[in-house]
Amino acid sequence: MSAMKLSPVPHHRVQVADRFWAPRLAANRKVTLPLEYRQCQRTGRIDAWRLDWQEGRPNKPHYFWDSDVAKWIEAAAFSLATHPDKKLEALVDDVVELIASAQQPDGYLNVYFTVVAPEERWTNLRDRHELYCAGHLMEAAVALWQSAGKRRLLEVMCRYADHIGWVFGRGPGQRRGYCGHPEIELALVKLYRATGRQQYLKLARHFVDERGRQPHYFDREARARGEDPEQIRRRSLGSPADRPYEPHLAHLPVLRQHEATGHAVRAMYLYSGMADLAAETGDAALAAGCRRLWKSVVTGRMYVTGGVGSAEHGERFTFDRDLPNEFAYAETCAAIGLVFFAQRMLQAELDGEYADVMERALYNGVASGVSLDGRRFFYANPLAVWPPAYVHRPQSDHVQARRQEWFGCACCPPNIARLLASFGGYAYSQSPERACVHLYVRGGADLDLGGAKVRLEQETDYPWGGNVRIAVRPEAPTAFTLALRLPGWCRAPGLRLNGRPVDLGRVARKGYAHLRRTWSAGDSLELRLPMPVERVEAHPAVRADCGRVALQRGPLVYCLEEAGNGPGLNDIALPRSAGLAARFDRRLLGGAVVVTGQARRRDPSGWGGRLYRRAGSRTRPFRIRAVPYCLWGNRRPGEMLVWIRES
Amino acid sequence: MSAMKLSPVPHHRVQVADRFWAPRLAANRKVTLPLEYRQCQRTGRIDAWRLDWQEGRPNKPHYFWDSDVAKWIEAAAFSLATHPDKKLEALVDDVVELIASAQQPDGYLNVYFTVVAPEERWTNLRDRHELYCAGHLMEAAVALWQSAGKRRLLEVMCRYADHIGWVFGRGPGQRRGYCGHPEIELALVKLYRATGRQQYLKLARHFVDERGRQPHYFDREARARGEDPEQIRRRSLGSPADRPYEPHLAHLPVLRQHEATGHAVRAMYLYSGMADLAAETGDAALAAGCRRLWKSVVTGRMYVTGGVGSAEHGERFTFDRDLPNEFAYAETCAAIGLVFFAQRMLQAELDGEYADVMERALYNGVASGVSLDGRRFFYANPLAVWPPAYVHRPQSDHVQARRQEWFGCACCPPNIARLLASFGGYAYSQSPERACVHLYVRGGADLDLGGAKVRLEQETDYPWGGNVRIAVRPEAPTAFTLALRLPGWCRAPGLRLNGRPVDLGRVARKGYAHLRRTWSAGDSLELRLPMPVERVEAHPAVRADCGRVALQRGPLVYCLEEAGNGPGLNDIALPRSAGLAARFDRRLLGGAVVVTGQARRRDPSGWGGRLYRRAGSRTRPFRIRAVPYCLWGNRRPGEMLVWIRES
Repeated sequence: MSAMKLSPVPHHRVQVADRFWAPRLAANRKVTLPLEYRQCQRTGRIDAWRLDWQEGRPNKPHYFWDSDVAKWIEAAAFSLATHPDKKLEALVDDVVELIASAQQPDGYLNVYFTVVAPEERWTNLRDRHELYCAGHLMEAAVALWQSAGKRRLLEVMCRYADHIGWVFGRGPGQRRGYCGHPEIELALVKLYRATGRQQYLKLARHFVDERGRQPHYFDREARARGEDPEQIRRRSLGSPADRPYEPHLAHLPVLRQHEATGHAVRAMYLYSGMADLAAETGDAALAAGCRRLWKSVVTGRMYVTGGVGSAEHGERFTFDRDLPNEFAYAETCAAIGLVFFAQRMLQAELDGEYADVMERALYNGVASGVSLDGRRFFYANPLAVWPPAYVHRPQSDHVQARRQEWFGCACCPPNIARLLASFGGYAYSQSPERACVHLYVRGGADLDLGGAKVRLEQETDYPWGGNVRIAVRPEAPTAFTLALRLPGWCRAPGLRLNGRPVDLGRVARKGYAHLRRTWSAGDSLELRLPMPVERVEAHPAVRADCGRVALQRGPLVYCLEEAGNGPGLNDIALPRSAGLAARFDRRLLGGAVVVTGQARRRDPSGWGGRLYRRAGSRTRPFRIRAVPYCLWGNRRPGEMLVWIRES
Repeated sequence: MSAMKLSPVPHHRVQVADRFWAPRLAANRKVTLPLEYRQCQRTGRIDAWRLDWQEGRPNKPHYFWDSDVAKWIEAAAFSLATHPDKKLEALVDDVVELIASAQQPDGYLNVYFTVVAPEERWTNLRDRHELYCAGHLMEAAVALWQSAGKRRLLEVMCRYADHIGWVFGRGPGQRRGYCGHPEIELALVKLYRATGRQQYLKLARHFVDERGRQPHYFDREARARGEDPEQIRRRSLGSPADRPYEPHLAHLPVLRQHEATGHAVRAMYLYSGMADLAAETGDAALAAGCRRLWKSVVTGRMYVTGGVGSAEHGERFTFDRDLPNEFAYAETCAAIGLVFFAQRMLQAELDGEYADVMERALYNGVASGVSLDGRRFFYANPLAVWPPAYVHRPQSDHVQARRQEWFGCACCPPNIARLLASFGGYAYSQSPERACVHLYVRGGADLDLGGAKVRLEQETDYPWGGNVRIAVRPEAPTAFTLALRLPGWCRAPGLRLNGRPVDLGRVARKGYAHLRRTWSAGDSLELRLPMPVERVEAHPAVRADCGRVALQRGPLVYCLEEAGNGPGLNDIALPRSAGLAARFDRRLLGGAVVVTGQARRRDPSGWGGRLYRRAGSRTRPFRIRAVPYCLWGNRRPGEMLVWIRES
């Protein structure tokens, strides 16, 4: 990696002490992590590593279980780095030992393919998540090493990675396959960065390069299993029959994939791995491919909440501007994946567009994934809910109008746990020449600018307020560029350096104010980000949002809930001229800014049991009360609506 | 049946010569009937009756195939009565012979349970449509006898009905089961009416009375199969776990079923059978139950098109006012079933509410089920379509934005064929005292009022125009009440008898003008039904229609199509004040009244690839062009929208 390139300031060098995230991070640590361990234990995911399951016994291991435990370990590792916890550490150590004990003599490590279907090892890369599980274990291993200084799992996973490198490749006797669920690509880059071993980078490159080539590996593999590859063309999860491997992001070689498509989480993980590889190798074509895919996501296929993947069927992207609200899937994991992708793009190119999307996803579609108390989770994150509207969808624990305690396919809960446990890592970047502030969060960070230590401290009530005071505290006076993000949602930012106004027209570039000078302890910045309530409209081709506005204040998208507004939210219309007020309510949902405004609501009387009548109902004034989208569903269950009708 | 009760004038005593239905009926006769025969033949449905299918051969008979052929026979029989056709008659005779040859020595008659799973006869009434298939064959048999004078199938089906009556009942050794898909109940009443044999009426009554009782037959039956009845509680097609038999309309005894629920077609067939039984037996409680269920349908669970059953999942009713448009299921068969139910309620009680709903379904949600040329069919009838929006739903041939040539589950095509072939039968009713006109259709009818022959002739351009001239031609001067429907959609009807105004305030009752006098040849009536374009709104609790209006003119609900309006229909808003004009366009869709009006449409420019921006787009004038909903999808594929945003 070029020494000039940005890298994130690790989360354990960042302190989060605000009113928005800090309580969530505490709940994640104190409630979610123990709870997820118990769920993993209760469901057999932990004990599965003992490799003593036998047919006929309960808790038959599933082929994606390894990844759930891996993500929990990663989350725990991140947490241990910021909040040492002997009890948690002991749990992690035990699980790691169990995992290590499950490693086979050849280095192979996977529960399902060791105890349930050992004869099927590497025979169904398309569907069975084998390399995906390996990837998550690698990420966990790197996190344990980098965040908690524990090498045990890293060594195990290097052995496994070496084994995988022996099995996969273009050499004689090697398999030219890759995983139907991308993940190992980005994980191998992490493993490379943690160990410096080039072979892991090469293997990641191999998996990315092989993807989608003809003759298609998944065809060959299916034939080797005695299956007709045509079969999958008839159950292609929403893909055209001539693109059966689109859900797997393997319909085309990656550089010919120009549109965000297929399974949204797989897409985000693949694009993140591609961005990592582009950064490591300097491959301009790969970087351009990433930018193309990025544009496809953010200009056509992303909810205003940062959710991606609108279709439940196949958990996938559909087509441009197809963003239904009530039927939005917008999996929590996919929004998390978008954060991963955005963060990588941002390190490669300091452009506020990436940070804006990262912030949009974090504050809305990711934060909505877990309850305030850390106990319940959304898998799907719709933008409109009318209980019991879910009768229209096959009943599934994934798609529910209330957060659930756990899921059969439990990818989201540990994913959000690891995201929150490492949240601070998204706020700053560093390079020998630059210090960047991407997110405004009360707290501080200890940066290392090519050896020079610089501490940044933020005093702010963001996202409830837009004033940010930043204290710059280098160990010694140091020349570097401090890049402060000017959020895209802010129309009129203002900046002062040591009390003197800064001409943003001169220093602002691509969404950041670039301040180059020799910084000394005591330098301070005051950033003002006025955050009036804004009405947002969607592109006219987003049919679901026609005639509607979303309310946004700062980075937060708002919604109406039945709690506070009564049922029948869709019968509320907000006049274009209506004033909107924002007020912090400390008793509401742990403290939040509420948006109120004078709307109108149809008079529901006089129907006498009729279902249809000649139009002409009257409307009456109604005061709406909107809360941040990420907080919905923390009160009594009921309706929810993001896009409000405009009149 | 009481001699005073109304009964429909049989379709073969009615002539249809209008511009709306007559071409459809001709297409049904000339195109649809031969085409459906070929489909039945191509797919093996005809040859299956040879009982020579063997495992490993193609076209494995499905347990609902018998019903598809039966409905085709019924349709052909209806057609032969009005339009003799030697070729069609020969086809029907051949199929009937095949069916007769398949009857088992004991009278049993079902392809699937004879050649595929003979050991499973009567073991899974819940799922396997065994009695349902019998019912459709009975209906076909009655139609062949009454419409075409052919007794062969009637005799076969009487033998089968006798066998069923021997198997089912409360006697020792008899089964107390009933079908998971109601149909045989109404069919047995038809068989009773055709033969006068009381045992068929009794058997229908038995099936209705046993339904939903505890201990539950479907539980016992499942246990007898060695299954755990709890299983179905976990896959209950959208029903609560404690109502696993709601999809089968067997969750409660019928008199305790107060809400329209479960599978919509099954519901309509059950309610129709209940209404038949109430009429035949004079059972007031059963009649009251029918009225309750009717109210549940029409006051809470019916689309403005007369479609019912809003959820694809389970093809079912959901809850009150849950009527999504894009995701509407509204199966063609269910709208047809609603016509059956409405017609029966109307005979029992001459109330315009029943006729209004019957007309609404016929002109909208039923007529939409088949293309103008009679070649293609809708199974689901959504009220809004954005191709390719169907990526959000598991791909199925049922749910498509274009009419299909056939379906794996091919219930709808022959159902609409039999409805159209007998369409005239819905227009008039007769009793010794009354002649009723329910539908205004150019043509005539030959009534039999307790022996007195009366011919009615209609001269009208309905539904394109609202003037109707009716000539009354009794064979001899006859005293009777002529009841003319005053459609609920019409605000200001006017009536003249022999040129003199009739005071409707005096003669109108429950949606009909009752004219009692001695009628003589030469008497004539002029009915004026002004049909301005009306804006319709839905109850505020219909969340999908909030802020929207549907356009209706006469009985026809209108829609916007992409053809004629361009894409992005949801971005059109119709001001409350906009004038709406109606004009017949003879070149459009076989000739139709088009509705135009001045709306506004968002200016789609200036987005520069963005997906969201601060609200404030301008709108520009746009002239909408709406066509009858039933005609949509007959031009190039594209968007469609019934409920138009109002501004």
